[in-house]
Amino acid sequence: MKVAILSGGVGGARFVRGVVDVVAPADVTVIGNVGDDLEVLGLYVSPDLDSILYALAGLNDEERGWGRAGESWEALAAAGGWGGESWFRLGDRDIGLHLVRTQALSAGEPLSAVTRRLCEAAGIETALLPATDDELRTWLETPAGLFSFQEWFVGRGHRDEVDGVRFIGEARPAPGVLEALNGAELIVIAPSNPYVSIAPILAVDGVRAALEQRTAPSVAVSPLIGGRAVKGPADRMLARLAGGTGPAAVAACYPGLIDALVVDEADAADLDGLGDVRPIVTRTLMSDADARRRLVEAVLGAVPA
Amino acid sequence: MKVAILSGGVGGARFVRGVVDVVAPADVTVIGNVGDDLEVLGLYVSPDLDSILYALAGLNDEERGWGRAGESWEALAAAGGWGGESWFRLGDRDIGLHLVRTQALSAGEPLSAVTRRLCEAAGIETALLPATDDELRTWLETPAGLFSFQEWFVGRGHRDEVDGVRFIGEARPAPGVLEALNGAELIVIAPSNPYVSIAPILAVDGVRAALEQRTAPSVAVSPLIGGRAVKGPADRMLARLAGGTGPAAVAACYPGLIDALVVDEADAADLDGLGDVRPIVTRTLMSDADARRRLVEAVLGAVPA
Repeated sequence: MKVAILSGGVGGARFVRGVVDVVAPADVTVIGNVGDDLEVLGLYVSPDLDSILYALAGLNDEERGWGRAGESWEALAAAGGWGGESWFRLGDRDIGLHLVRTQALSAGEPLSAVTRRLCEAAGIETALLPATDDELRTWLETPAGLFSFQEWFVGRGHRDEVDGVRFIGEARPAPGVLEALNGAELIVIAPSNPYVSIAPILAVDGVRAALEQRTAPSVAVSPLIGGRAVKGPADRMLARLAGGTGPAAVAACYPGLIDALVVDEADAADLDGLGDVRPIVTRTLMSDADARRRLVEAVLGAVPA
Repeated sequence: MKVAILSGGVGGARFVRGVVDVVAPADVTVIGNVGDDLEVLGLYVSPDLDSILYALAGLNDEERGWGRAGESWEALAAAGGWGGESWFRLGDRDIGLHLVRTQALSAGEPLSAVTRRLCEAAGIETALLPATDDELRTWLETPAGLFSFQEWFVGRGHRDEVDGVRFIGEARPAPGVLEALNGAELIVIAPSNPYVSIAPILAVDGVRAALEQRTAPSVAVSPLIGGRAVKGPADRMLARLAGGTGPAAVAACYPGLIDALVVDEADAADLDGLGDVRPIVTRTLMSDADARRRLVEAVLGAVPA
């Protein structure tokens, strides 16, 4: 079964890993958010693509939740000692990836082509596509002012309430993105933050339309459990921007874009207001490989046999 | 006493460290070779400036002879794993420096200004100046063809004989270089390779003339001991290009540029052909801080009290 997944960062990456443990990896295409991409110490860093890449390569740090396992921090500490910026944590192994990618981008290679080469180097059969090769950046409107995503998320510890999300930049879909959505037998929106992980993918020209005009079923996995985010600000953002943190509020982020919503058992009593979106109730916490697999099987069950 | 030192890499850096252990660091200006500079993984690397910087900051690895002490190699290994170049060894801590400098250079800051900031960050009072802010690169003519310095030195292990050395690029002296030479009470050519460490400094506009027209005494320290290089290809290059490895061959590399040549006791029997260059015989192997100090005191002794 050909599966196309829209994914943000850590939660999405875990989910993607679960999918390729169940579905043939070569049948899966992951469309990753690049709205959070930034330049740190002159390096092009793509946190969401990297989380997915590391998860697919089995290099991710399961405990810390982001970055590479067995990471060290010597380069960043040295850079700080020489007066360089050190607010954004880059591990030594992680920097190895950023160096290779930054060099390629500087030489004019598109992000999608570099990402393909990186996947090949790691023996990854799954297609990992940036949503766009163009510069599309997520900005947050807050009571304290307008911030770029990482300035708000990392620099300010996402403590400011969000009044609105803006995507700056005209972005065409990267090669293969629309083809993957049009050719998929199942489209999945990973359990990522709807506003800052999935919306920037939908903001790319043609992506929202491809989902609206889909012929395959489309399933979103709610990132909330009992109305709370496992990690990050998704619950606070939903409460403020959608007026609630229940399944209906999540579904309302994807109007006309999904046929089913996978929600946790903890939210099973709160299924009103879903309209024609079918709820699929299961355990959604991806605490280990087995839990991931069960979640993925529930998602795949949305496709009529 | 105001001292200006022309220095290449590792041997020069050790000598510079010895000088600032004897002379007030703020009275010393080091003019460093940049003919070896290169780009690795998109990083601007300046091996000779870095050797001097690390020696002045007390961060250098005394045993390995180059790079930083306590170094690790995670980023380079990771870069290699993703298909990046890994022929040039960059440690994690070293990469921290390269990141800060590369970012500043990309933003348009001249190399001399970045270097000054790096020295300030490390609390270094000695002025460390690149010979030039312009791109001047050392190339080697060999029987196997023309190679850039690092391609020959690191990539090919400097095994090719050298028939000639070329400096590519029109280079003006960096701010402060000519002023340091003109204002010095002693000019010292460090025990560095005359052809690939010192000659690229002399190739910068006005530097050779400043030495020729000097009012202060100028002393070179021979990099050879008993006609052999402590490390590197200086002896083979002298044998082939100057017809010998004795003190006269070293002095012939600096025609009209030096008043005295410091040679090792092992070369004391071979002082013919020095012309009006006065030999100063001492032990020149900088095996530890005491040995460095004795060598520096012999050099300083060249200045009439």
